[in-house]
Order: sequence, then structure tokens, then C-alpha cells
Amino acid sequence: MSIEQFIAENPSFIFEGDSLPFPVHKRSFKRNEIVTGMGQTESKVYFIISGIAEIDIFKEGFNRIIDFYFPNSFFCALTSFLLQKPSEAEIIALTDLEVEYLDHADIQKAYQTSLLANQLGRHLIEQAYLVKFQREKDFLTKTADIRYLDLMKVRPELLKLLPVHKIAEYLGIHPESLSRIRKAIIPNIRQG
Amino acid sequence: MSIEQFIAENPSFIFEGDSLPFPVHKRSFKRNEIVTGMGQTESKVYFIISGIAEIDIFKEGFNRIIDFYFPNSFFCALTSFLLQKPSEAEIIALTDLEVEYLDHADIQKAYQTSLLANQLGRHLIEQAYLVKFQREKDFLTKTADIRYLDLMKVRPELLKLLPVHKIAEYLGIHPESLSRIRKAIIPNIRQG
Repeated sequence: MSIEQFIAENPSFIFEGDSLPFPVHKRSFKRNEIVTGMGQTESKVYFIISGIAEIDIFKEGFNRIIDFYFPNSFFCALTSFLLQKPSEAEIIALTDLEVEYLDHADIQKAYQTSLLANQLGRHLIEQAYLVKFQREKDFLTKTADIRYLDLMKVRPELLKLLPVHKIAEYLGIHPESLSRIRKAIIPNIRQG
Repeated sequence: MSIEQFIAENPSFIFEGDSLPFPVHKRSFKRNEIVTGMGQTESKVYFIISGIAEIDIFKEGFNRIIDFYFPNSFFCALTSFLLQKPSEAEIIALTDLEVEYLDHADIQKAYQTSLLANQLGRHLIEQAYLVKFQREKDFLTKTADIRYLDLMKVRPELLKLLPVHKIAEYLGIHPESLSRIRKAIIPNIRQG
């Protein structure tokens, strides 16, 4: 799917005229290539055509995975993009990655006159807010076991695609703890 | 300040025609009155003309203050508003409160056709996202002492207006810990 198709398929966006209110560019990243480096000011919003991206922060010497992004979704280092300040997060291509992207300057220009650009921007930031709220609440209220079970339910493809240490980083636990959880949970699931 | 003045004073909002793209209503709340109750679906966005509001969650039997809202700012139980699901947070009037408000249905209607409504919605949710990001980061990276010092710097009016137990709830610490921090910090500041 392309950005244009993504917009066309969502009935809450109103297409004005024949074309999008901003230029769309294309590029690709190799597996493990840095999309947005730490300290870099985010100047783009990306849309994944194929592949997976990962956003990380480093805290107390440990890498923490904030989120993964899959095809047909937008991503960027959002706080850096909004404030136009150096990013405290890093985005890397977890697999080879084909993307479309929009430039910050083109988006700001479109925001001044385009209903569609504002509808899209508002929708994407609403989604980002809700994801952040849910993840914050999960960390406050759910144990690691429950967070792992939720992940199995909501994103089973993640567990197939990712090595165990990546899943542990995403859940915010040590790989050894994840192994214990998996051993404890899997027989229970088979019996249940 | 009113919603109309708030919009007129921000150059990134484009006024279309003479009037706002949604009806604006007015009401007042008495001190300690509930604005949005837990379990209630948020149907309004409020703008404070005078007074202070507080948003709380209850977690493990403790009240946690998520944020305070001051004059000339918007607030609502945002996740509930966006998802139109029962709120997990509660908003109360910390003082007598004069507000203007917009209805969810009017906003959704305006989003379909109004550039201004989308610009405003996008701006407000961007701000909400940034506040949430900053607070999450503060909890992850700053000690209670530093969070209290930051609060003294950034929102000194809060320390004058609020009783100590409210400040402690906002910082996520016990009132006794806050007293210790204040005693330890205040002489240092006077000497420094």
C-alpha cells in the first residue's frame, strides 16, 4: 500500500482535488541501517511499504525498544519531529525496508491550507497518543507475564519474526526472565 | 481569555469566515465538583476561563494526580474522548471553575469540513502528546528531588496554590518523602 492508497481507503479523510497536498518521496533502507539517528533532528515522516522498523531509546546502558512498525503504517521520531529538536530515540531498519516519506517543511506548508493534511496529521497523532497511553498503562498495571500473553494475542507475528532478546527488550525485561515466563506459560496454554 | 481569543492569538490557526466552526458553550463548576467522573464517556473538551482543574487516576488504592490545568488551556479525559469509551481518569474542579466547552459531536462534524477545527485539534493533541512524553521521561530518568526542583522552576505558582499532599501525589511520592526533600533542598537553595 502507498500513502495515497492509505488516505483513499480511510473514509474520514476528504480528498481535495486530484493529488496529495504534499510531495511523496521513496527510498529503501538495508537491514540494520539507521533511519533516524540519536541526536538527529527528525525531518521526515515515513510510511512502510514493506519491512519492519524499530524505535529504541538507551537508558542506563541498556537498549529499550519503544515500538515496532509494520507495513501500511506511518512512523518517525515524533517528539523530535514536533519540536524540531535532536532525537532522544533511534530508528533502525529491522529488515530491509521500502518506504515512502514526506518532508517536515512540505507538511508544515500543507498544514496552512490543506484540510486533508490536517485531518491526516491529527489522525496520526491521535493514534500515537493512544498507543503511548496504552503502553504506559500496561507498564503501570500489568506484570511481565501478562504483557507477554497480551503480545501473543495481539501481535503473534512479532513472536515469530523477532529473536527472543528483542521481545525481552520490548517487554522491558531480561531475556532470562522471558525464558522463564515462556516455559511457565506455554505448558499451561497447551493444557488450557 | 475565551476559545475565540485563544484561536485568534495563535498565528498558526487560519480563521475561516467570521465565526468558529463549532458552537461554544459556557458553564461553571464549584470547588471539588466532578467535571468528568471515572467510568463516564468524555463528551466535551473544556477551556478554562478561570480556576484550576485536576486529572487523577486511582491505582492500587492510591490517588495519583496526572496533571493540573490552568486558565487559557484546554483539557478533557482525552483517551475517553478519542475512543468514546468510559474514562479511567477523573477530572475535578480544584477551585471554583469557569469554563467554555465544545461538544464531541460538534467537533466531529467540524472535522469533516473545517480547516480551523482540524488545525486546532491537531495542535492540542500534539501538545498533549509532548506533555505525556516529557512526564514519562521524567519518571524514567529523574529522581523525586530533581522532579520537585523542576516543578519549583517551571511551575512555582503550583507550589503556592496547592497543599503539600497534592504536590506529593503529582510527583508520585509519599507526603513524608516530599517533606524530607523540601527540608534537604530549601537550605541548599538559600545558600546557593
